[in-house]
Amino acid sequence: MPRFSYILRVQFVDTDMAGIVHFANFYRWMEEAEYAFFSSMGFKLVQKQPDGVIIGWPRVRASCSFESPAFYDDLLEVDLDVLRVGVKSLTMKFLFRRGETRIAVGELKTACCVHTPGEKLYSIEIPPHYREKLEANPA
Amino acid sequence: MPRFSYILRVQFVDTDMAGIVHFANFYRWMEEAEYAFFSSMGFKLVQKQPDGVIIGWPRVRASCSFESPAFYDDLLEVDLDVLRVGVKSLTMKFLFRRGETRIAVGELKTACCVHTPGEKLYSIEIPPHYREKLEANPA
Amino acid sequence: MPRFSYILRVQFVDTDMAGIVHFANFYRWMEEAEYAFFSSMGFKLVQKQPDGVIIGWPRVRASCSFESPAFYDDLLEVDLDVLRVGVKSLTMKFLFRRGETRIAVGELKTACCVHTPGEKLYSIEIPPHYREKLEANPA
Amino acid sequence: MPRFSYILRVQFVDTDMAGIVHFANFYRWMEEAEYAFFSSMGFKLVQKQPDGVIIGWPRVRASCSFESPAFYDDLLEVDLDVLRVGVKSLTMKFLFRRGETRIAVGELKTACCVHTPGEKLYSIEIPPHYREKLEANPA
Repeated sequence: MPRFSYILRVQFVDTDMAGIVHFANFYRWMEEAEYAFFSSMGFKLVQKQPDGVIIGWPRVRASCSFESPAFYDDLLEVDLDVLRVGVKSLTMKFLFRRGETRIAVGELKTACCVHTPGEKLYSIEIPPHYREKLEANPA
Repeated sequence: MPRFSYILRVQFVDTDMAGIVHFANFYRWMEEAEYAFFSSMGFKLVQKQPDGVIIGWPRVRASCSFESPAFYDDLLEVDLDVLRVGVKSLTMKFLFRRGETRIAVGELKTACCVHTPGEKLYSIEIPPHYREKLEANPA
Repeated sequence: MPRFSYILRVQFVDTDMAGIVHFANFYRWMEEAEYAFFSSMGFKLVQKQPDGVIIGWPRVRASCSFESPAFYDDLLEVDLDVLRVGVKSLTMKFLFRRGETRIAVGELKTACCVHTPGEKLYSIEIPPHYREKLEANPA
Repeated sequence: MPRFSYILRVQFVDTDMAGIVHFANFYRWMEEAEYAFFSSMGFKLVQKQPDGVIIGWPRVRASCSFESPAFYDDLLEVDLDVLRVGVKSLTMKFLFRRGETRIAVGELKTACCVHTPGEKLYSIEIPPHYREKLEANPA
């Protein structure tokens, strides 16, 4: 069972002249699923902490393998799994499905960072209140 | 003669399953041409002034009429004209052409604003050093 | 009462360095709302008819006025109204709201067209089964 | 020395509220560089052959590692190298630099396919006239 599931509808703008979904959309959709997963834990991708520090999760690496094309109007299910909660980083896996048909499999590694508007980002250890929820067993 | 000209190449990602450029790209391209026009005057779309204030140009209104489809690999010319330099706003017109074929005509109205990271935008009168160049006659 | 309502969540990717939603997204969102509206009537934006002809709705003109910025994580409601069902064209209006705060107002004019893959689009009169539903009074 | 070099300007729309380039753009830019590389050899990403068959290059896998943020107005250089010309697939590597600063490193694997509008894609052996140029030593 996946840790979290997200559903999305393929829009017309997501297609290209080959008649299928353009591959760059899958990276955007990984982030959408990640965002929904964070929301389900009570977090935002960019969030001011009680002490005023703003924590964000910039990307370290993202990859995706494309197994079968997706089409306009498809309802895609995204199964998100947490692969690893590191000291300062988080790695998630995303399986995109249309029913039982596997469409793509992606992986996203992010780093826990402080980012103050207008200043340089720097990575920090994942704070305990994030870690606790990220390491919890799925329902 | 247009005030400023910009050339762009239609990319594969800009097309949709109808085999033509998706209309939302034209709004992005108006901004690209606007940016190149600003650069030609020595300005950025978001720019820190000598006194530390950051000036930006958020959009008030943008429209575009589509006359003929554009295709992957097209080289499009964008003729930019300044329609009006108001007290606090700037209105530009954009004609998209593929050679002599008219593709689209757009209009973009922007407001001169102060925007400090993390704070609310507010509009200001267009500063003299911007106005001087915006009102200059084209070469 | 609007003819149709659509709800969307602002994603991180929709923002720009000014910290607000980039204006080009609103044109994409008009299409998303239009698509959902078409779905509610049993239509797709691109649809093969019983006689094999493929009908699509390329854009003639799209405009949007921006009244207030939208932000990451906003839940936006889009009120769609049919402004005019012409002989060959359809014009819709879109009000984007965050609760009671007006964010933007857009208008989209589309043309009913035949588009066979790999061939030139041409406009046709809106077929009766489309017209009947487009002209129906909202529930 | 890279096999091919491509230069691009970061646009305002490419940034997000963290003030840096959104990661999904790098996948789009790999394709832009790939397209320019193909053009330099006299090919398009989707191209009708003399025998009427249309050859395209859908993506099998794309990954990117992000080493340093890129910003609005950056001029990025993309060094493209051909990593492998397989029987039916092509793998390219992309180094994104701002001067000497490494920004990101990506990899893209594509498959040589026949794609007729409205029909299913299927992979074929890379035709000799493509292979010859893809395997040539860089100038």
